[in-house]
Amino acid sequence: MKIIHIISGGMDSVTLLYDLIKQGHEVKCLSFNYGQRHKKELESAHLTCAKLNVQHDVIDITSVTSFISNSALTGDVDVPQGHYEEENMKLTVVPSRNTIMLSIANGYAVNIEYDAVSTAVHAGDHAIYPDCRPIFIDRLQKVFEINNFKPVQLLAPYLNIDKAGIVKKGLELGVDYNLSWTCYRGHDIACGKCGSCQERLESFNKNGVEDPLDYETRELLPKQ
Amino acid sequence: MKIIHIISGGMDSVTLLYDLIKQGHEVKCLSFNYGQRHKKELESAHLTCAKLNVQHDVIDITSVTSFISNSALTGDVDVPQGHYEEENMKLTVVPSRNTIMLSIANGYAVNIEYDAVSTAVHAGDHAIYPDCRPIFIDRLQKVFEINNFKPVQLLAPYLNIDKAGIVKKGLELGVDYNLSWTCYRGHDIACGKCGSCQERLESFNKNGVEDPLDYETRELLPKQ
Repeated sequence: MKIIHIISGGMDSVTLLYDLIKQGHEVKCLSFNYGQRHKKELESAHLTCAKLNVQHDVIDITSVTSFISNSALTGDVDVPQGHYEEENMKLTVVPSRNTIMLSIANGYAVNIEYDAVSTAVHAGDHAIYPDCRPIFIDRLQKVFEINNFKPVQLLAPYLNIDKAGIVKKGLELGVDYNLSWTCYRGHDIACGKCGSCQERLESFNKNGVEDPLDYETRELLPKQ
Repeated sequence: MKIIHIISGGMDSVTLLYDLIKQGHEVKCLSFNYGQRHKKELESAHLTCAKLNVQHDVIDITSVTSFISNSALTGDVDVPQGHYEEENMKLTVVPSRNTIMLSIANGYAVNIEYDAVSTAVHAGDHAIYPDCRPIFIDRLQKVFEINNFKPVQLLAPYLNIDKAGIVKKGLELGVDYNLSWTCYRGHDIACGKCGSCQERLESFNKNGVEDPLDYETRELLPKQ
């Protein structure tokens, strides 16, 4: 199948890219610059795509950001520390982010006659991000069936596995996790303290493997 | 209700703006610069909003356009002349255009705590633009119910009336059609020949009224 894969540069979308290639699909990658603090993600996406010899484009949608977001990921609000907890992490929600990015990828797929769009949303995201839930993927898929002359499939194969399951898969696939970036802060080295770093560290921990990435600290904080 | 209204500057979205205000809604308007040749549309949107004292913003999404479109509306292909006929006018389709624009408006509505997003898609568009059909509005509405923490309504009140019906409504509402732009070509004066101009001229004709806009020619061409 010909697939436009949305890659953030984080471990989930990087793992899925390896996975899709292993399955023999023809893949082009798309990232979005929406003004995220964690721009290192985009560099990581680029390095991974270069390593795998996959076309990678970044679309700048920062013109959209000021309209849609006061989120801690783009704005002046501090990125919360500690484990992902609902109220805390709602600060990191960018409204309609996945709807917008997937719709653009959908248009791109139609334009270059690709069959599908893929996203690495996963079970760990469901409680926090409304646009990472199965019901969202299901309903957007129904839009992509009819919003153009040709239907485009919406693939979200990690929808029902969690981050530890993704790491397990990635270790089997030989993913170079040094070239993936998860931290929501904009530092040179992953902070190890934000919800995103904590989740990643925990996922490697559950697999009994040390994350190859450098961190300021690797200590797992107690859940609130 | 608090509504983000998507206004192109064409007669349909301009009429709907008057209509929403008449109904007592609180409205902010949003336009998109996607590199359309017919930029006069955006000026018309601006003039109408200024006249009605409504906030109007234009979001530049030209960064997206090269990925999604070879359409005659944005690219090097000629805008077809004559009446809208399916094969002919498919050249003017920009893939996923409404999905993308409505999704951005949806995020904006969530961000500023507005209740709804409105679009002036109408019955005349159905055959040509897949993302102007009732099934599209219905399915995207189902996405907007669940893709954020708060549902946002998707309003498309002209879905089942045609352009002549819209003009009829607009004449009752006292719409200043001199401040609306329909031509798909980028000239100073509406060409009168493209499908869009022909449809507009015909709609006024059916209401027995002369369109106040200047045209290079007002002759109705025979349908193919």
